[in-house]
Amino acid sequence: MKIVIIGASGTMGSYLVNAFEKEHEVIGADRNNPNIKVDITSPPSITRMFELIGPFDALICTAGPTYVGPWKTLTDATFRNGVEGKMMGQINLVLIGQDYINAQGSFTLISGAVTHEPQKNFANASAANAAIDGFVRAAAIELPKGIRINAVSPTVIENSPQYFPFFPGETPVTMKQLEYGFRKSIFGTNSGYIISL
Amino acid sequence: MKIVIIGASGTMGSYLVNAFEKEHEVIGADRNNPNIKVDITSPPSITRMFELIGPFDALICTAGPTYVGPWKTLTDATFRNGVEGKMMGQINLVLIGQDYINAQGSFTLISGAVTHEPQKNFANASAANAAIDGFVRAAAIELPKGIRINAVSPTVIENSPQYFPFFPGETPVTMKQLEYGFRKSIFGTNSGYIISL
Repeated sequence: MKIVIIGASGTMGSYLVNAFEKEHEVIGADRNNPNIKVDITSPPSITRMFELIGPFDALICTAGPTYVGPWKTLTDATFRNGVEGKMMGQINLVLIGQDYINAQGSFTLISGAVTHEPQKNFANASAANAAIDGFVRAAAIELPKGIRINAVSPTVIENSPQYFPFFPGETPVTMKQLEYGFRKSIFGTNSGYIISL
Repeated sequence: MKIVIIGASGTMGSYLVNAFEKEHEVIGADRNNPNIKVDITSPPSITRMFELIGPFDALICTAGPTYVGPWKTLTDATFRNGVEGKMMGQINLVLIGQDYINAQGSFTLISGAVTHEPQKNFANASAANAAIDGFVRAAAIELPKGIRINAVSPTVIENSPQYFPFFPGETPVTMKQLEYGFRKSIFGTNSGYIISL
């Protein structure tokens, strides 16, 4: 299977590249990738990436910039980080990528637990994640050619301890659990699911 | 109680103005209002509105433009209708309005059932509504001065029969149910709730 991983050099992305490249053809892409560079906040950049990659079977997105900070610093301007990054960035990957993905292919987007369990400083992520969840449910009934779409929605992950203080009492998701969440989406048959970890 | 209703001349807004003005001071605002004009897609326009209105106790928003149309016409550009309108328009009403609302005041935003029960042609609304729900849950733990926030999330409403064909088998929400949903938010004590109708 040819699997595209967006955010391939990040904490999640690099783990998933390692996990999947033993058995699959993995194409990593991100903002600073020397081979496949993509800025998901730019639709033309997304189109260029898909032109380079050609047909593929699965796309995983682990790139989801949002604004994290005190409520009083939340404005229209700071809110745009999550709107353009985690929300529209991922939505445009699907709206544009549907013309390049093979029939029966799958998109797996990244959401997050703050959608339903908010934490202070993360209101921008709560909104952007929720938008992804809503979009995934809607896109699942619209996508043509048997293309599936799901989201993986983890709480704080074990390899990002810098976020632990923001998630009091939350048991971190292991990287293995995260990998299994993505496996469930890519190799399963469900569509429109939010895989909560 | 001084209640601001955004979208006051619309189907929902005009019903709610009538319902509340017997017992409360109601200030109606919308895009074409001769007295209080507001374009919720423009933060400066929102600020000017609040400067005109002065302190208030509750804000209801019934204005939520989104793009409705076939999946294949959904692009970054058409998706912006819901992003700028129903999503950021309402979020900015709260981010800006929190400096004008009285302590213990309430914001009640409009969401919709397609968040969790998608229908064809409404993917933009699914995402924008979901973003509102996520934002409401997050804002509820952040807003200062005892300010509350909830969303009313109706399915198709009885006074909008033009939408019935898009919602097969869906029992329309009555205008009275809608009014009660908003009453629950404004006169109750909950915060961070999605009032599903």
